[in-house]
Amino acid sequence: MLHLNAFLMTVGHHESAWRFPESGLTAAWDVAHYRHLARVAERGRFDSVFFADGPSLQGDVRHRPVGRLEPTTLLAALAGATEHIGLIATASTTYEEPYNLARRFATIDHISGGRAGWNIVTTAGREAAQNFGLDDVPAHRHRYERAAEFVEVCLRLWDSWEDDFLLGDKESGRYADGDRIHTIDHIGRFFRVRGPLNVPRTPQGHPLLVQAGSSSDGREFAARYAEAVFTAQQTLAEGQAFYADLKARVAAAGRDPDLVKILPGIVPVLGRTEAEAAERAHELERLQVAEYGLRQLASLTGIEVTEADLDKPLPDGGVDVTEVQGAQSRFALVTDLARREGLTVRQLLGRLGGGRGHRTVTGTPAGIADTMEEWYTSGAADGFNVMPPLLPSGLEEFVDHVVPILQRRGLFRTAYTGSTLRDHYGLPRPANRFAPTPAAP
Amino acid sequence: MLHLNAFLMTVGHHESAWRFPESGLTAAWDVAHYRHLARVAERGRFDSVFFADGPSLQGDVRHRPVGRLEPTTLLAALAGATEHIGLIATASTTYEEPYNLARRFATIDHISGGRAGWNIVTTAGREAAQNFGLDDVPAHRHRYERAAEFVEVCLRLWDSWEDDFLLGDKESGRYADGDRIHTIDHIGRFFRVRGPLNVPRTPQGHPLLVQAGSSSDGREFAARYAEAVFTAQQTLAEGQAFYADLKARVAAAGRDPDLVKILPGIVPVLGRTEAEAAERAHELERLQVAEYGLRQLASLTGIEVTEADLDKPLPDGGVDVTEVQGAQSRFALVTDLARREGLTVRQLLGRLGGGRGHRTVTGTPAGIADTMEEWYTSGAADGFNVMPPLLPSGLEEFVDHVVPILQRRGLFRTAYTGSTLRDHYGLPRPANRFAPTPAAP
Repeated sequence: MLHLNAFLMTVGHHESAWRFPESGLTAAWDVAHYRHLARVAERGRFDSVFFADGPSLQGDVRHRPVGRLEPTTLLAALAGATEHIGLIATASTTYEEPYNLARRFATIDHISGGRAGWNIVTTAGREAAQNFGLDDVPAHRHRYERAAEFVEVCLRLWDSWEDDFLLGDKESGRYADGDRIHTIDHIGRFFRVRGPLNVPRTPQGHPLLVQAGSSSDGREFAARYAEAVFTAQQTLAEGQAFYADLKARVAAAGRDPDLVKILPGIVPVLGRTEAEAAERAHELERLQVAEYGLRQLASLTGIEVTEADLDKPLPDGGVDVTEVQGAQSRFALVTDLARREGLTVRQLLGRLGGGRGHRTVTGTPAGIADTMEEWYTSGAADGFNVMPPLLPSGLEEFVDHVVPILQRRGLFRTAYTGSTLRDHYGLPRPANRFAPTPAAP
Repeated sequence: MLHLNAFLMTVGHHESAWRFPESGLTAAWDVAHYRHLARVAERGRFDSVFFADGPSLQGDVRHRPVGRLEPTTLLAALAGATEHIGLIATASTTYEEPYNLARRFATIDHISGGRAGWNIVTTAGREAAQNFGLDDVPAHRHRYERAAEFVEVCLRLWDSWEDDFLLGDKESGRYADGDRIHTIDHIGRFFRVRGPLNVPRTPQGHPLLVQAGSSSDGREFAARYAEAVFTAQQTLAEGQAFYADLKARVAAAGRDPDLVKILPGIVPVLGRTEAEAAERAHELERLQVAEYGLRQLASLTGIEVTEADLDKPLPDGGVDVTEVQGAQSRFALVTDLARREGLTVRQLLGRLGGGRGHRTVTGTPAGIADTMEEWYTSGAADGFNVMPPLLPSGLEEFVDHVVPILQRRGLFRTAYTGSTLRDHYGLPRPANRFAPTPAAP
């Protein structure tokens, strides 16, 4: 069975989405919009919904509704509006403190009955750095070293209460067994944290750990910690290579490769016919604002291009990818795409407008299901990070027309069989490092 | 009209609460428990519910369910479970970053339709410091200086989007007026924050600012920033003196004293008769665990007493209150109480067990309403921070039996007349410092 995550980005992943008639101008920060989307995804039996994040105003607000809600807070609101679906939010190890973040995700896991997931990011943008007292983003390697220590601290905090700490003896006044609640006494390079957490261990033991960095540092990090990986892959061959590489790294790290689920992004541009899908793709591209796309391109690659050069090839940035301190893997993907296909800047902006480097598939529901089945059965994906270009319609159409095809082919669940996010992804509840017990089946 | 805030503390404010038959052993981190409480308070037309907080495991878990949920996350969950009532959470300026916290409270204000409030604390405990890389709590004065700069940064971030930023021109592709969204370019002693926030301005402009420190530094801080103040006052005379002092400080700071609401804490121990109330008070005290109370006393005052000395007077801590780096005002209140009334340590623990220094009133609904009316009409309170010893029953009884008396006397609302927390407290929506406009009536 493949896994489906609904990546919910304001009014849609395509940068033109807000200009379509269906799009609400203030929906990007309207909880009712997200409640609806989460319920639609749950109706479609998705494993999870997911929100990206960075602690800065990202993108050009003059040309797109980039204001938004803080996603860990939003997850708590969605927990009460849904019953089954997993709830994943991004949070940054560079600009948070582990004690604070561990508490919030533990709280979401309790509130949702075990449906919380954390997409661990190190945050590449300079704008974010400048909201936290820095002049520029910390070095790539430094960020990943901090991330690893951050996650280690969180894992210990989440285990700091053993599952069976409770005595609950009202008669004698003994509430808990103090020997089963532990300080963690962490002293490291980045953090000193005494513990214990002030939240008891959660239904999932700890939230599902998700990771989306595909650089060399990112893959190594994923191999050690991730239970699900979101990734941008443009071609089947690239997807297969990434899948094989990451699973090998997981095995090399001493973990079971089956317990790390790899979900490439897919931007489905749907039509009842091929012609209708192509027409929608054309309309999305027609409504792109070049000025916005050029700013995004500069943000992804550091390559500055003016409108005068839209119909020329992408200039050479002259940057060694390993020197990129921002999002290394996305830089390489974008520049490789432009060169491999000989795209002009305008053509490249069209390709990036929907998914910022994620694969766009334009076609009928059956055609999109074919692509997904091919990737799933040929070793490129355990599932997909579905990125509708328009929201809510793109998700509604996917749930109503693509999901039933996947279900009929026996590729996707027709009902939820477990109650936690880990259940949906087929992952066990982790043992507690302070009191190892057999993991639940 | 007086104002009522429901201070929701796990299974009740009294340290014995968990030993009563009604108390759920895991209710302290069960969102269903808090949903019920918030709905009961809303049925009682309370202005708000409120959660205390500190980023550490506070109190002795062996003798009390001190594990809990992170309150800003919990507020987001309660927003969807209620329609009218204000939602206030504590968060620390010492252990958070302003950009992160400003986003979360802005998100709660959006999600709740303008019902968010932030109780600003500087966090006195050493345990918290040790979860954030420090050996001990930063000095009292230092914490308040950081708090002031922290709040200034948040206020600017909350104003960084003017209310009328939206163009929404789908035809031309112009989404927003970039001139109405501002960087804040803050450079201070503690923080450098560029902005803008990535959340648009909220229904209330910014969340209600609440403060609960009653030290000299705390009062000065409240005078500058607070819109509501929670305070612990043991006698009417002390309450009147605090009320007069704080209102004078507000005026001296150039603000309208009517726009800062002062709410002393009250722990109502209710009975249908005086005898029944006294019996309940006795039962609460009987179930106290001396070992727990002594640890709490040490935590509040720094005075270490053993069980052997329970029936002696409180020993002299020999500490100058201005040298206390933790909770200065609570230290003074506890030691003054013990000396003024000549209490033994055991008697003092009994008095502190319900509200840790807040006033306990034992009696019938009419008797408790009399006390509240007296404080309200004689210049000691604009309302009350209601701290039920048992939850849910203590809140249910207050709503069912005390609130109707206050309503019949014309002291309390019988229906909500506004939609935001500021509406409930009779406070205007603040103007935006980047685009001053008349405050809403």
